[in-house]
Parts: sequence; C-alpha cells; structure tokens
Amino acid sequence: MSSVEDYSQLLQRAIDAFASLPGVGHKSAMRLALSLLRQEKSFTYRISDALRNLVDGIQYCAKCHNISDEEICRICSDETRDPHTLCVVESVRDVMAIERTGQYQGLYHVLGGVISPMDGVGPQDLFLHDLPTRIQEEGIKEVILALSTTMEGETTNFYIYRLLKDVEVKITTIAQGIAIGDELEYADDLTLGRSILQRIDFQESLKR
Amino acid sequence: MSSVEDYSQLLQRAIDAFASLPGVGHKSAMRLALSLLRQEKSFTYRISDALRNLVDGIQYCAKCHNISDEEICRICSDETRDPHTLCVVESVRDVMAIERTGQYQGLYHVLGGVISPMDGVGPQDLFLHDLPTRIQEEGIKEVILALSTTMEGETTNFYIYRLLKDVEVKITTIAQGIAIGDELEYADDLTLGRSILQRIDFQESLKR
Repeated sequence: MSSVEDYSQLLQRAIDAFASLPGVGHKSAMRLALSLLRQEKSFTYRISDALRNLVDGIQYCAKCHNISDEEICRICSDETRDPHTLCVVESVRDVMAIERTGQYQGLYHVLGGVISPMDGVGPQDLFLHDLPTRIQEEGIKEVILALSTTMEGETTNFYIYRLLKDVEVKITTIAQGIAIGDELEYADDLTLGRSILQRIDFQESLKR
Repeated sequence: MSSVEDYSQLLQRAIDAFASLPGVGHKSAMRLALSLLRQEKSFTYRISDALRNLVDGIQYCAKCHNISDEEICRICSDETRDPHTLCVVESVRDVMAIERTGQYQGLYHVLGGVISPMDGVGPQDLFLHDLPTRIQEEGIKEVILALSTTMEGETTNFYIYRLLKDVEVKITTIAQGIAIGDELEYADDLTLGRSILQRIDFQESLKR
C-alpha cells in the first residue's frame, strides 16, 4: 500500500485540506494532519471552529475596506487620527505593517490587491472606484501611494494617478528605501517607517 | 494599532489556531489565516470539516494499532502478506514510509511512540505489552525492530529485546544504512528499503 488513502480516507482528506493552503506541501500537510491525532480532540475542534468562524463572521470596514469586527473599523472611527491623509495599500497585511512602524497617523484605503493582468485582476476587481468620491466627501488633502514596488504595484500607482487627475489632492508615494522588487509586507519596520516619513511627490518620483 | 487583535478578534483566533500547529510560526499563521479571506467560504468549510471529521472518525486497527477506517486495517486483513513477520515501528508515518519502499511484505506493530523519559513517555504509554501475546497467538517467527536510530529508539529496542526474552522468536533490526541520529521518516526510500532487506540479528548488531 503506497498512498495514505489506502489507510484512511479521513486522513487523506485532512492532508488534502492542509495541502490546499498556500505554501504547505504534501509532506508538511501529512505532518500537520498526523499531529492532530496526537492531541486531544478539543485541540482540533478549536482550530476547526476558529477557521469557520473567521470566514463566517469577518467584516470589512465600509469606509476603508480593512478587516473589522464592526461596520466601521477602529482606525476609521479613531478621532485622534489625521482625517485628511489617506494611505492607499494593497492588503490588510500592509495596514498592519505600517501601523507597526508607529510613523503614520492618517487613514487607509485598502484596495484588496493590485492590478495584475497575468493573474486576471483588473481595476474593477479592486476598491478603486470609490476612491475619488471618498477623497472629495472626506476632504482628503493628501493621498499616499504605499503599494509594493513590483510591476503590478507600479501599474496600479499609475492607474490611481490617472483616476485622480481631476481631483484636487496631493499625491505622494512612499520613499523607495525598500529594495525594488520587494513585497511591502516583508520590509523591516525601520525601513518601512522611514519610507513613510520620506514620502515624495508622485510626479517628482517619475523623474528619478 | 499594533496587534491583529485590535483589528479583528476573529482573525486573531484563526492566527492563534494555525500557530498552535507544530512548525507553524506566527508570520506563517497570519499568512494562512489571511489567505482564507481571499477564498470562497466553501474552501474554508472544507478544511474545517476535514479536520473535525478526522479526529471524530479516525480508528486504530485493533491488531497492529495502525490508523484505519475499519476495525482491522487493510494490511492486517490482507491475506497475501506474510503473517509470520512483524515489523515494530514508532508511528503510522513509519508504516507509510516502509510501505512506499515496496520491500516489505509482512505485518506491522505500531507502538505509538518510543520510550522517552525526557518527554515523559514510558513503556506503559506505548502499545508494548500486547506484543508478547500477539507474537505467540499469531505464531510470529520474526520481529523486525524498525525504530529511529536515536537514543530513544535504541532504548525502546532494548526494552523490547528484554520484554521478549522468554518468547521464542527471532529478533532482527533494520540495517543502519540510515545515518545515526536521523528520524526514520526522513530517510530516502532506497536507503530505507535496503535497510529492511539487510536486516541483521539483534544480538549480532550489539557487537558492531
């Protein structure tokens, strides 16, 4: 007998479940599934419930699209923050990364991804088209583009730049202290914090 | 806001759930939890159900203690296998590893671990004491000790050797083609298969 399925369909399905997660290979999946069998059942129930509750209960902030357990997230409803500066990021992880630096006091706008024709992600798949309205309604004075310095990030920067060409707002981009080609979420806190502080005018950035 | 909990308790709990698995760090756990949010809910339901069903439904073979969806596993009930040779292994993973080599046609006895005073695992925690009876009742002629070549594995080998001193059975141990200190399940199939074929008498092995 050479496949797990010969021993137990239940085990095979648990292995397949783990292996369907990004970055988890077949061998790791098998280790994880077998590790559950060495624990109390309640251990696995807790994991199983936590995953189900996450996707059943998670909400996204109606304003900035960050994840939230309430309708408006804690950042958007925090009155001590600067309501006139808006930082455009790709994902929730980037909000967390920037918050960790402690260098930014404004609000966020989470796109939910970047434009990537290769992956079939177009502007209509992202939270882009509420951006001009949001800027005008909330009286935003500066939009900071804080996307990853990849091809897709740059494309999205340009798209937003053109989307906002008739909107009266200053557009800046974070200083590229982070290496070209790097994903934003992997930058170290110090570098990322500095890149927020040293943000430069978007048009200026094109000349460099 | 610097911790995930500030954004979403649900997300925090899902991250904690992943991070409670062996070998999954906090950063990986966060990636895994967030990846669920990018998928259809049914994707997560499938994972959640597979894990719960595994621990609710899994059975262990009444004879060899291998995992099984039935009371007697498919290896024990396979009449084409040699019923007089018994291979003693630590875990289900080791059964799978040996089966993959295609070099072994006998039966198994899964201990469920090895004796490890450091981890608080004593002989009474393992499926050891049904071994003499099983050998006699089933007319086993040869017991192959196929435990990891670690200190704990060697200790368990000795324990079994003494446990069986009054039982008329040949005791062999797999050839140590696998490097000393290595875990059995990580050996490559060729080496592991050869070590089964070149098994030697246990008393002989003490002299080397």
